[in-house]
Amino acid sequence: MKFDFTYYNPTKIYFGRTAIDNLAPELEKYGENVLLVYGKASIKKIGLYDKVMEILSDCGKKVVELSGIKSNPTYAQMMEGARLVRENNVDLILAVGGGSVIDCSKGISVSAYCYGDPWERYWINGEQVDNRIVPVASILTMAGTGSEMNGGSVITNEDKMLKNGRVFGPEVYPKFSLLNPEYTVSVPKYQMVSGVFDIMSHLMEQYFSGDDDNTTDYLIEGVLDSLINATRKALKDPEDYEARSNIMWCATLGLNTVTGLSKTQDWEVHMIEHQVGAYTDCAHGVGLAIVSVPYYKHIYKYGIDKFVRYAKKVWGVDTDSMTKEEAALAGIERLAEFIREMGIPTTLREIGASEEMLPLIANSTVLGGGYKILDAQEILDILKECY
Amino acid sequence: MKFDFTYYNPTKIYFGRTAIDNLAPELEKYGENVLLVYGKASIKKIGLYDKVMEILSDCGKKVVELSGIKSNPTYAQMMEGARLVRENNVDLILAVGGGSVIDCSKGISVSAYCYGDPWERYWINGEQVDNRIVPVASILTMAGTGSEMNGGSVITNEDKMLKNGRVFGPEVYPKFSLLNPEYTVSVPKYQMVSGVFDIMSHLMEQYFSGDDDNTTDYLIEGVLDSLINATRKALKDPEDYEARSNIMWCATLGLNTVTGLSKTQDWEVHMIEHQVGAYTDCAHGVGLAIVSVPYYKHIYKYGIDKFVRYAKKVWGVDTDSMTKEEAALAGIERLAEFIREMGIPTTLREIGASEEMLPLIANSTVLGGGYKILDAQEILDILKECY
Repeated sequence: MKFDFTYYNPTKIYFGRTAIDNLAPELEKYGENVLLVYGKASIKKIGLYDKVMEILSDCGKKVVELSGIKSNPTYAQMMEGARLVRENNVDLILAVGGGSVIDCSKGISVSAYCYGDPWERYWINGEQVDNRIVPVASILTMAGTGSEMNGGSVITNEDKMLKNGRVFGPEVYPKFSLLNPEYTVSVPKYQMVSGVFDIMSHLMEQYFSGDDDNTTDYLIEGVLDSLINATRKALKDPEDYEARSNIMWCATLGLNTVTGLSKTQDWEVHMIEHQVGAYTDCAHGVGLAIVSVPYYKHIYKYGIDKFVRYAKKVWGVDTDSMTKEEAALAGIERLAEFIREMGIPTTLREIGASEEMLPLIANSTVLGGGYKILDAQEILDILKECY
Repeated sequence: MKFDFTYYNPTKIYFGRTAIDNLAPELEKYGENVLLVYGKASIKKIGLYDKVMEILSDCGKKVVELSGIKSNPTYAQMMEGARLVRENNVDLILAVGGGSVIDCSKGISVSAYCYGDPWERYWINGEQVDNRIVPVASILTMAGTGSEMNGGSVITNEDKMLKNGRVFGPEVYPKFSLLNPEYTVSVPKYQMVSGVFDIMSHLMEQYFSGDDDNTTDYLIEGVLDSLINATRKALKDPEDYEARSNIMWCATLGLNTVTGLSKTQDWEVHMIEHQVGAYTDCAHGVGLAIVSVPYYKHIYKYGIDKFVRYAKKVWGVDTDSMTKEEAALAGIERLAEFIREMGIPTTLREIGASEEMLPLIANSTVLGGGYKILDAQEILDILKECY
């Protein structure tokens, strides 16, 4: 571990089949006005909406609702939520859904009492939050983003065709998150594997950086190993509670900052996908999967030892008999095979991108990287390879 | 993951060479009266005592000192600290040292305003703390116990010849802990390897339980892998900062509850060692190492699949060509080899135990276990095997 770090994560996690039993005691700690944020009908289908409304009512809460949060939550929805918070003097924002709903809720939390335009100040300029922050809590129904235990908030500004992420400090983290893996069982396969790849990408984008001996890398290898095993089980039997629970916990561990400590990290795959998402509105993890294979083939030479280690430790490739080049590529090929095994699309064409979009996506992508800092031309090359 | 769990760990960690820079800003959050708790002269030798006193003085704190905390901190020392807290209206207990000093400080924290005898109420009867808790913070100088980020407090009652551990809730966890691996460089080899084995034992005692597919087990495998690699580097070059930093962070991860989530856990090795320690005052990790090999040879049959996995994943044993029995024993043998490689004693005789002590230790050990619940006779057999 080369770099100094601070680790502080005060989100309280209630995990398991009985997680919901902790909602009422937690609600007692907050005032009476609750903004309930959710997406589409899915939380109604599994009975969670009724259950939550019943508990809120039993606890004497006044509930305002903001529903229809999109899978890429928009600036407009966030500002609508901010207005509701102000008008109803909301004491707690309760997000019920996946990462999009929680991301949007954090955005509402910091925007409601913001002086000036929160998009410009917090998402574009990265300013410190200097206004009142409304507490957020979550009930998670999809495994993927890790938003349930961090300060991340990715918002899409439709007018500007930009999807930007901001990582806020612990004061914006959910105060508590309820994680019941049973809620994820009804998630369709396409959404499930999208979530799984989002988790993998978080782990890989933290892993593929640096040349130091770092305990964090060993942790990531462990979480990836568990995630791959659990995903294979969940693909065979979507109702395998144990597999679903491992996927859910891997998602949280994948981005609750513990798997990034003392790492410089990469995140360029996410930067590219953000713009793919802004143009195609694709499922986040699917966009990541499409971009990842050509991306890693493009950069592996600059961090080859780590790619050899990845092949060996994560995929069990027998690297001893190979050159470094062969070993690194074998690891990336195993990743590509796993993407196909999950049934995830492998081209941008399949998710509705047009050829004309590629330069627009490349030119609007925030440039960065781990082992190699890319320019817009290289990003365009990568996009063409997976078109 | 079979079992529901709650995860909440609000300790703030400042890690790295500049960790001490965070002391002054943190101290501002507390009142002016500080109880400084430490052990022997070692923190003076490395200049840490002077540095801390200077910062405390610059922050306008009134400091009371409690020094000479033993490696097995005693009930008498804890009660002396509790008296100092009451008499000086202490606002913050600052522990500077290893796990013993932090454990003692947590004990002081809950005992100062306890109604009745804290030993009976909290360590023997396991009652909930219902009195004022004085905040604790720590500056860690030895890697091992993980006490810097949990609620554990192991105290030795010399009059009763009992060494008992109590795990308190997050309200007793250190508010913040400063972890600078440089402080551990001056720790003598014997203390270092004792700390390393304490970490290994924490990880193994959480690992060796259950038959479910559990993300936590994969995490433990990652941390053990990193710990073993880092220890070998630190044995070669005690001043290897990176190795020392990995060992330090493995120690924290090893017992900050994340590596025990959804696990039934074992802890019988710790229970046996506590009584070995009460009778011999040995270094904690050394006692654990001596007991572990015969203990695991005694119980492996009851959880054989996990021991096969341990051999393969942690030690890289090629288990495919072996029977389960052979593979499990090969893993335990690798553990025994690593103990010898670290130069840790392997018999109770070497740490000053007499043959007469063995039945006394066996009969006073708290009975429990992971794959097998032991009785006192079995514990005596184990003690005889490593006498």
